[in-house]
Amino acid sequence: MRLRNVPHAREFIAESPFVVHEPETLAGKWASDVFQNDHPIHLEIGTGKGRFIMALAAQNPDINYIGIEKYSSVLLRLIQKQEEQQLENLRLIRGDAQMLKSFFGPAEIARIYLNFSDPWPKDRHAMRRLPSREFLSRYDYVLTKDGTIEFKTDQQPLFDFALEELKESAFQIRAMTRDLHADEVLGEGNIMTEYEERFSALGNPIYKYILEKR
Amino acid sequence: MRLRNVPHAREFIAESPFVVHEPETLAGKWASDVFQNDHPIHLEIGTGKGRFIMALAAQNPDINYIGIEKYSSVLLRLIQKQEEQQLENLRLIRGDAQMLKSFFGPAEIARIYLNFSDPWPKDRHAMRRLPSREFLSRYDYVLTKDGTIEFKTDQQPLFDFALEELKESAFQIRAMTRDLHADEVLGEGNIMTEYEERFSALGNPIYKYILEKR
Repeated sequence: MRLRNVPHAREFIAESPFVVHEPETLAGKWASDVFQNDHPIHLEIGTGKGRFIMALAAQNPDINYIGIEKYSSVLLRLIQKQEEQQLENLRLIRGDAQMLKSFFGPAEIARIYLNFSDPWPKDRHAMRRLPSREFLSRYDYVLTKDGTIEFKTDQQPLFDFALEELKESAFQIRAMTRDLHADEVLGEGNIMTEYEERFSALGNPIYKYILEKR
Repeated sequence: MRLRNVPHAREFIAESPFVVHEPETLAGKWASDVFQNDHPIHLEIGTGKGRFIMALAAQNPDINYIGIEKYSSVLLRLIQKQEEQQLENLRLIRGDAQMLKSFFGPAEIARIYLNFSDPWPKDRHAMRRLPSREFLSRYDYVLTKDGTIEFKTDQQPLFDFALEELKESAFQIRAMTRDLHADEVLGEGNIMTEYEERFSALGNPIYKYILEKR
């Protein structure tokens, strides 16, 4: 994703009531202190401009959503849309997913979405890839026992890496496909991200897996 | 939907482990006795050949699904598919939705899907229409307090009727559209039924609402 430096992005983010600041202080308390209900919490890591998570939040009032995004300039666009829609069941975090275990308590999250995350192509950056064993271990900590991970990517090497890393994790495959948009089961109801729509128009396949705990 | 008389349909249905017989004996006990977990239960009334509910069940292992279908000859096709897929979180009922309050206990269901139900065009049959006030009252009984109803149809008179009936019910609109496939929010992730795919190929709009309790 191309990043622009947006003036005053950080100030704008600081003022939004939908952005949760200091998420470290809320670990284990998202249901009671933020959403004030006991609905399941679903998380998108690298939520970008937010088309995916906003569609889910609008359609599923009985699920709470949290989007995490590292870049202020990207999050800005999502916040603007959320200020218009005011979805009560959606909150945003400007932060780094490496901090996941400080943001959330054990078994606090029911589902994690990873959409088109950065492939970090250099070997020495492997542990920064969101489906790496290091991240899977963090997901294991924050997910409920029935929790699931949904990962999709257009990067075949990243998907192959993800399948390898999985073997070193607490998870197993519930379902997978190497051509999501042609898949009879997983393709149904697929919500496309902004990136996915542009990319798949070129005719290239999207890879996806759904993981569950062993 | 055209109905054929399929020989031995009832016998086949009687033998499937995925079909729940005598659902009246399970009211209030679906979590403990059928699914043996505490996941939310979503219901599709008039589940037809089951493309919709099977895609949902495959993709959402943390949700339990029940499909109700009145006609043995239609349910047959769904059972055959389920015998192949063996989705643990999907059960089927051959029965009439008028019996809903005897099939389920209070607040046992988290979501109800009504897809392209019979319009029953004659006035004297209004109470048989699935979005009628009579049915809404049944849904109110079986749904949790955060429960939702998702209804879609290609029949404009039925949709207008549904909006009127709603006023006499315990529900309010969470979201609605008169052109689902063109809708930026509700159109995202829409899972088409067999009927919907054929019908919408003609270019006609699909109507949809999502209801929540007031």
